[in-house]
Amino acid sequence: MNQSPLQKARYQYSPKLPGMLRNGISEICVKEGNATQSVADQEKIAALFPNTYGEKEITFEKGENTSAAKKQVVGVILSGGQAPGGHNVICGLYDALKATSKENVLYGFKNGPIGLLEDNYVEFDDAYIDAYRNTGGFDIIGSGRTKLETEEQFAVAAKVCEKHGITAIVIIGGDDSNTNAAVLAEYFAAHNTGVQVIGCPKTIDGDLKNEDIECSFGFDTATKTYSELIGNIERDANSAKKYWHFVKVMGRSASHVALECALETQPNICLISEEVAAKKQSLSEIADYIADAVEKRSANGNNFGVAIIPEGVVEFVPEFKVLIAEINELLAGNKTEEFNALGSWEEKYAFIEKGLTAESMAVFAILPQTIQQQLFLERDPHGNVQVSLIESEKLFSALVKDKLTERGFTGKFNALHHFFGYEGRCAFPSNFDADYCYSLGYNAFMLIQYGYNGYLSKVSNLSKPAEEWVAGGMPITKMMNIERRNGEDKPVIKKALVELDGKPFKFFEANRDTWAVETAYTYPGAIQYYGPTEVCDLTTRTLALEKGE
Amino acid sequence: MNQSPLQKARYQYSPKLPGMLRNGISEICVKEGNATQSVADQEKIAALFPNTYGEKEITFEKGENTSAAKKQVVGVILSGGQAPGGHNVICGLYDALKATSKENVLYGFKNGPIGLLEDNYVEFDDAYIDAYRNTGGFDIIGSGRTKLETEEQFAVAAKVCEKHGITAIVIIGGDDSNTNAAVLAEYFAAHNTGVQVIGCPKTIDGDLKNEDIECSFGFDTATKTYSELIGNIERDANSAKKYWHFVKVMGRSASHVALECALETQPNICLISEEVAAKKQSLSEIADYIADAVEKRSANGNNFGVAIIPEGVVEFVPEFKVLIAEINELLAGNKTEEFNALGSWEEKYAFIEKGLTAESMAVFAILPQTIQQQLFLERDPHGNVQVSLIESEKLFSALVKDKLTERGFTGKFNALHHFFGYEGRCAFPSNFDADYCYSLGYNAFMLIQYGYNGYLSKVSNLSKPAEEWVAGGMPITKMMNIERRNGEDKPVIKKALVELDGKPFKFFEANRDTWAVETAYTYPGAIQYYGPTEVCDLTTRTLALEKGE
Repeated sequence: MNQSPLQKARYQYSPKLPGMLRNGISEICVKEGNATQSVADQEKIAALFPNTYGEKEITFEKGENTSAAKKQVVGVILSGGQAPGGHNVICGLYDALKATSKENVLYGFKNGPIGLLEDNYVEFDDAYIDAYRNTGGFDIIGSGRTKLETEEQFAVAAKVCEKHGITAIVIIGGDDSNTNAAVLAEYFAAHNTGVQVIGCPKTIDGDLKNEDIECSFGFDTATKTYSELIGNIERDANSAKKYWHFVKVMGRSASHVALECALETQPNICLISEEVAAKKQSLSEIADYIADAVEKRSANGNNFGVAIIPEGVVEFVPEFKVLIAEINELLAGNKTEEFNALGSWEEKYAFIEKGLTAESMAVFAILPQTIQQQLFLERDPHGNVQVSLIESEKLFSALVKDKLTERGFTGKFNALHHFFGYEGRCAFPSNFDADYCYSLGYNAFMLIQYGYNGYLSKVSNLSKPAEEWVAGGMPITKMMNIERRNGEDKPVIKKALVELDGKPFKFFEANRDTWAVETAYTYPGAIQYYGPTEVCDLTTRTLALEKGE
Repeated sequence: MNQSPLQKARYQYSPKLPGMLRNGISEICVKEGNATQSVADQEKIAALFPNTYGEKEITFEKGENTSAAKKQVVGVILSGGQAPGGHNVICGLYDALKATSKENVLYGFKNGPIGLLEDNYVEFDDAYIDAYRNTGGFDIIGSGRTKLETEEQFAVAAKVCEKHGITAIVIIGGDDSNTNAAVLAEYFAAHNTGVQVIGCPKTIDGDLKNEDIECSFGFDTATKTYSELIGNIERDANSAKKYWHFVKVMGRSASHVALECALETQPNICLISEEVAAKKQSLSEIADYIADAVEKRSANGNNFGVAIIPEGVVEFVPEFKVLIAEINELLAGNKTEEFNALGSWEEKYAFIEKGLTAESMAVFAILPQTIQQQLFLERDPHGNVQVSLIESEKLFSALVKDKLTERGFTGKFNALHHFFGYEGRCAFPSNFDADYCYSLGYNAFMLIQYGYNGYLSKVSNLSKPAEEWVAGGMPITKMMNIERRNGEDKPVIKKALVELDGKPFKFFEANRDTWAVETAYTYPGAIQYYGPTEVCDLTTRTLALEKGE
């Protein structure tokens, strides 16, 4: 029983394409729009991309296919963390490629960008592809985090492409991977390789979006999976009436995932990292904010609640950022050895007390001991604190407990902790993600066939039924600005953080005081693939609110 | 948007009753079977239940309803941990009660058995009930863990029943709650109160089953929810190819939940507590067993895997049980104060080393420090180690890491940890649990109406379509034996552990060596409520295997 009943059933699902792509390959024509400019730093970016800058936005329409007949040999790469729907991007790409000509070939480079550099690949055929239709995961070819960013790598990539007669590379990745896709596209153009590069916007974190990209794929399914679990936990909290659940959710720096889960489940508390940064909140202020809700609910007889904590929040607390920087400094070089040679935690603590500024020591002192030890004992190969490993769900519940003790709180406060991340990255894609991803891949091939290079596959109008979606492409350079990274000016796609004047946050802000005190939980339940449209096909609340729906 | 789209859609679902209950109340007659005997200790149990022992097993059939017309006033109680479907038991009970006579009344006692003692209740009407149909959770009236077991409590309960003219109490609970239901039934009979007691078998742990009860409700939905998540994690592991995931699952002492999840997802490793006990395995042996799989997989280039750890496993490791007993002894009485007065962990460690036997100290010494500290720092109000709080998923991954280091393992071993429990107890019930629970409640009322007391609502033939299910009742005393509890002989329903010669375990045993080395993962995906029958209506692999399917 290697295939579950659902997996077998999902093989039968036909992903929905945008209306304009439904008439067959011969009926897809291009409409070119205006020439584009990068969102900022136009001169610098134009200078960095002399061969690919300023290209036109394009959309596809129903009409005679005027692309030149040419055998296409395409290589596809999955880059970075898993996101539901990645398989469908490849399926859509394969279907469009084969529908155009049976002679066309699709290679999959294995285990991420490194597969291209090592010439490690598979050639897809129908049987191979069919086993992965509408399934989760990136196991079709594996993924990896190698970055394609150096001239040496590009030269190797060009050789591998030449060896196989590859005409185009499709990179399925997040903001960094697509930034690198643009640089690779420029390299290929500058060196007259004739190889095109097309990107597809992937990440469950939801931080690859802008005026052109309405959302990255995988965000819908991942947040629905986390919301299912948070809703179940809310219902448990409201049944047992004796626990506060602190739930950390993945999402890296941005709080899109936490915010979407909050909109779906209406918990008592949801921290938003971007707000913490904007208001320069301290750990103590955040703990006070949560403790207020605990006290108010307790006064109403409700000694239970649910709080959502975004993965990256501690890095947005200014005083905590300073503390981390000081700790990294304190242990730099051979000072780590000195520290490790100290026997007991008491001796280590004295060493820390001596080494930190009074301000940072004050922050350090209020942390629970397990977190204090985590900061010093689990460091990355460069000796730096691994902020992503900090159990911030336990940190905040401990701080809240201390606050309540300080305040003389006489109610009950028992906390339980959860972290959801890996649970949602490889779920079977929702109908939305299955459709969106298939369309992105199908569309990516049409961009290749029409000769575009350095474009992101773009499907928009996503809050509407798929019939009304708009397919096209956008030069990646259009989304770029210059940012300082590791001491260098780099052209990058701007990472989208939660906008505090955006509609999703505003809606949350307008309701959270009520949700904090009342029990206004919403229980989304498991993702449904069959059944009523309103249950199966709606995408995120974030997108609906952004679209003013 | 307090109601999610799925919740609204689930209100429309009509739970399926067993065929024999589908013809309307007037067409349900009783067929009495043989008089029953308890499964063991017949004389002792007969002596303890003079008024309710030895009653007949009964089944319902299609035929003229011959029950006496009588106004029924029923009180229902949710007891213990949440399990998906509890709301539907109440809905089924309500519907049968009102279909019999509009004059009948259903009360819900709030927050568990304490609601009966404190006379804290709601009276159900259509609007109230309709808001909870086919939903998860116990929030309809709340649940609680107060036990109804003393004569004083029974006397209070009798008074509350008399005050409201209550004719029957329905207790929805696990093995202990149903044991108490039987004792209460006997009390009511002995005191001629005229109040009947009916139990319903609830628990996600799956440990309330026997030759009469095929499974407890909630087990299906909870294990499907955990299996969804484990499958997603497996797919992530198989995509990223760099982590070993250690997943602890709820289930208390028994490993039914872990085993069912393993049958659904085919992980590399699943520990079964009952086997650990039978083979008297040591922590070191278990770690060796897992490390073997890590090494074999690594030799094949697979530095990733998934291991399922049942919640209760450490208590089944003989040497660990001894260690815990010694620790409890070591800290008994005022020795806790002495221990706490010691300053550093090093001093505490010396105290421990002096206090434990050499054998237990050897076990203690191999534990990771966080677990060592957990054992001494987090104790229950009686000063005992809180075994359920031990992060055994982290314990085993740490032990495996040590083993690999010892062995000079040169591959990669990076572990991630998960604990699933609260995520599944309040999910929307699967179609199976929605149907089964509604039938249990409907059936419970028919037992009341026909005058039975001290019975468990029984629905069987559950691996078949609902049409073929068999509805009836079984005297609770039939399932009892005498066990030693807290130094006293007590009549109790025997807790069902995983049988090592049972078909589910045998199937697992026959396949696990293959699963350990190969990547034979199965991805069940989210529970589906709509769509193909084979996706939506199948119950557990455990039941299918037990039934020889």
